[in-house]
Amino acid sequence: MRPDELYPPDRLAAAQRATAAAGLDALLLTPGSDLRYLTGYHAHALERLTCLVLPAAGPATLIVPRLERPAAEASPAPGTGLRIVDHADGADPYPLVLAALRDAAGAGGGSAATDIGAAGGGPAATGAAAGGGPGATGADPETGGRRAAGGAVPARAIGLGNRMWAEQVLALRDVLPHTRWRLAGEVLRELRIHKSPAEVAALRAAGAAIDAVHARMAEWLRPGRTEREVGTDIAAAIREAGHATADFVIVASGPNAASPHHDTADRTIEPGDPVVVDIGGTMPSGYCSDSTRTYALGEPPAEFRRYYAVLHAAQRAAVAAVRPGVRAEAVDAAARDAITAAGYGDAFLHRTGHGIGLDGHEEPYVVAGNDRPLEPGMAFSIEPGIYLPGRHGARIEDIVVCAADGVERLNTLSTELVLL
Amino acid sequence: MRPDELYPPDRLAAAQRATAAAGLDALLLTPGSDLRYLTGYHAHALERLTCLVLPAAGPATLIVPRLERPAAEASPAPGTGLRIVDHADGADPYPLVLAALRDAAGAGGGSAATDIGAAGGGPAATGAAAGGGPGATGADPETGGRRAAGGAVPARAIGLGNRMWAEQVLALRDVLPHTRWRLAGEVLRELRIHKSPAEVAALRAAGAAIDAVHARMAEWLRPGRTEREVGTDIAAAIREAGHATADFVIVASGPNAASPHHDTADRTIEPGDPVVVDIGGTMPSGYCSDSTRTYALGEPPAEFRRYYAVLHAAQRAAVAAVRPGVRAEAVDAAARDAITAAGYGDAFLHRTGHGIGLDGHEEPYVVAGNDRPLEPGMAFSIEPGIYLPGRHGARIEDIVVCAADGVERLNTLSTELVLL
Repeated sequence: MRPDELYPPDRLAAAQRATAAAGLDALLLTPGSDLRYLTGYHAHALERLTCLVLPAAGPATLIVPRLERPAAEASPAPGTGLRIVDHADGADPYPLVLAALRDAAGAGGGSAATDIGAAGGGPAATGAAAGGGPGATGADPETGGRRAAGGAVPARAIGLGNRMWAEQVLALRDVLPHTRWRLAGEVLRELRIHKSPAEVAALRAAGAAIDAVHARMAEWLRPGRTEREVGTDIAAAIREAGHATADFVIVASGPNAASPHHDTADRTIEPGDPVVVDIGGTMPSGYCSDSTRTYALGEPPAEFRRYYAVLHAAQRAAVAAVRPGVRAEAVDAAARDAITAAGYGDAFLHRTGHGIGLDGHEEPYVVAGNDRPLEPGMAFSIEPGIYLPGRHGARIEDIVVCAADGVERLNTLSTELVLL
Repeated sequence: MRPDELYPPDRLAAAQRATAAAGLDALLLTPGSDLRYLTGYHAHALERLTCLVLPAAGPATLIVPRLERPAAEASPAPGTGLRIVDHADGADPYPLVLAALRDAAGAGGGSAATDIGAAGGGPAATGAAAGGGPGATGADPETGGRRAAGGAVPARAIGLGNRMWAEQVLALRDVLPHTRWRLAGEVLRELRIHKSPAEVAALRAAGAAIDAVHARMAEWLRPGRTEREVGTDIAAAIREAGHATADFVIVASGPNAASPHHDTADRTIEPGDPVVVDIGGTMPSGYCSDSTRTYALGEPPAEFRRYYAVLHAAQRAAVAAVRPGVRAEAVDAAARDAITAAGYGDAFLHRTGHGIGLDGHEEPYVVAGNDRPLEPGMAFSIEPGIYLPGRHGARIEDIVVCAADGVERLNTLSTELVLL
């Protein structure tokens, strides 16, 4: 797949239109999936500031540490028409954000800023000024002494990347008083929640890659080995299967399987143990995989077999419930009702699923209270679980995508209990 | 090493004393190295809120998603005396933060809060109220509609974990008006920058583990292979050497070596290529490794040999400059002056090093302008580089720790150019 299919250069313009429509003057995005989604640039999250300044109107600027400039220039980012500005180690990069916003305002982003300023600049200005004052930053070397450069700055409403670090948020607060801070997610989640055919293809490839790892589980999962030993082999296989990184490896055996987010421990796996294996990685495309299967090493306890059958039916029911127009919470209910009816409701102690794309967890969340109707191109996990503290547990997880006529499973291995 | 040697349970009390001394009423810490440092709890960074509420006085509370509770209870955290509170998927967890602060105030943390309120509550209160108002949160479902529960809340000064996500920062702003926000780093960096003997031992083990990977480089680094193929082998070896995760693998060959943070690409490595290999991971202890060696596949270009000798001397000079009382910037100068004197100053485009511990990059930073004197127990990288755009480059990196009588290298392999 060509990079410009997965990361089309027109996303910046679409994000700018959505930013203006949301009444925001600009988005500020540090390294992470939002930045990669909009520019194709896979930046390193570092203490050094990398920040895309995306105004609602006018030119976009990518601020990068000087040593990252070659990587930024080699990425698809320049193809979007943005300008790259760098800063040397030891220099304060935050005034560059202010300068980039001013340039954009001068180039046509100004009127929106003025409108926002007139609409709500008063209290927001007082607020930001107080929040950004010496009393607020105290002696903190990270932000102390940093003040808005230049003269008057129009009041602004700015959306911060949802996962921007607090030390960056507070530093921006100091150089951008008179600003009302919101979240870029307000704007970007609506773009990212609708996967393009190229994105679905990337998620399909990620699903096939992680399926290939589960298909090899018998090579590693044996009684007498520790969870950690098995996990090390799985992590290597995740990369061998084509992932750029192995992001998580949960090998939860016997009683550890009752902890949904148990990682791996030194516990030696025993005959008859149920073992929950929840694994995922990130492909070179940037898109994530995530799949869970539960294995039994020899004949498991009788009760385990009973509730695994309940779980299996519940997971299938939730997958079958997926189609356009169905609310996310209805998919959660499809799994939960089946498990509750069998008497295991209290043992299913998490939501049914989460969206997936450039982030391992993103919208839409398949959880009670999310009444958002599903639409074609939405991709998410369906992963009910049953956990009996001190004894054992099970979880089954597939990534699915809502299709025009129903659902496509991106993990296609059987969900029957696998005896090794 | 016993966990309580590496993560002693008295760190919470030390952090509380430092919090009070800094004029902060509490720290709020989400998953990451600060939380792990204080409690030994290695939490997953998720959209679900996990937050340690550490008041300057009174009981500490760890707020966790319900499905993480078993993992939190199995961690060393309960041994610190903190209380664990959980929240179910779909419930708003932020009022739990307010409740935990109120409990602490009731248990003796109140007076400090009152003092802060009297000292600076006025403008801060106005600021937070404006910042947290409807205009600020707009229609954002992440924060919209969330308001401070209960009645009057005393003005507070709260330190946020430096890497807390913006979506959490803005949500906290909404439930905690009348708050002046600062950074927990003001308090915690002074604790974390002084490594205990147990921490130095953990870093020494991490250094030995990554050295063992470099020592095997001839197995993987050969002409005709792509950087990505070599990187996959290295990542597996990083785990085999005892790391819990392989955090980064830079294999930069030929012209790619001129980009300091080049990752790995599909470029096929050619005979005579200089190759910069910068690799690191995180040990099960939580402590990080990070080491760079530059290799040449056969005889490299003559100029490369010339500036590698310059780089080699510069790196040794910087290591030799490390001892208590020497300023961090002087160590940077020791490397930079040697490289500049040889005419390559412009080609050394980043600082000389960064601290390392539970984070791959932390204080102290070895950079011009950092006049902090080194002290025993400070651990950091010394990694000068020379980069010739379009041609090739080189970097040599060791982790060192400032010792009472000088310096200890935690990466002990030779720094001579390795011909493969």
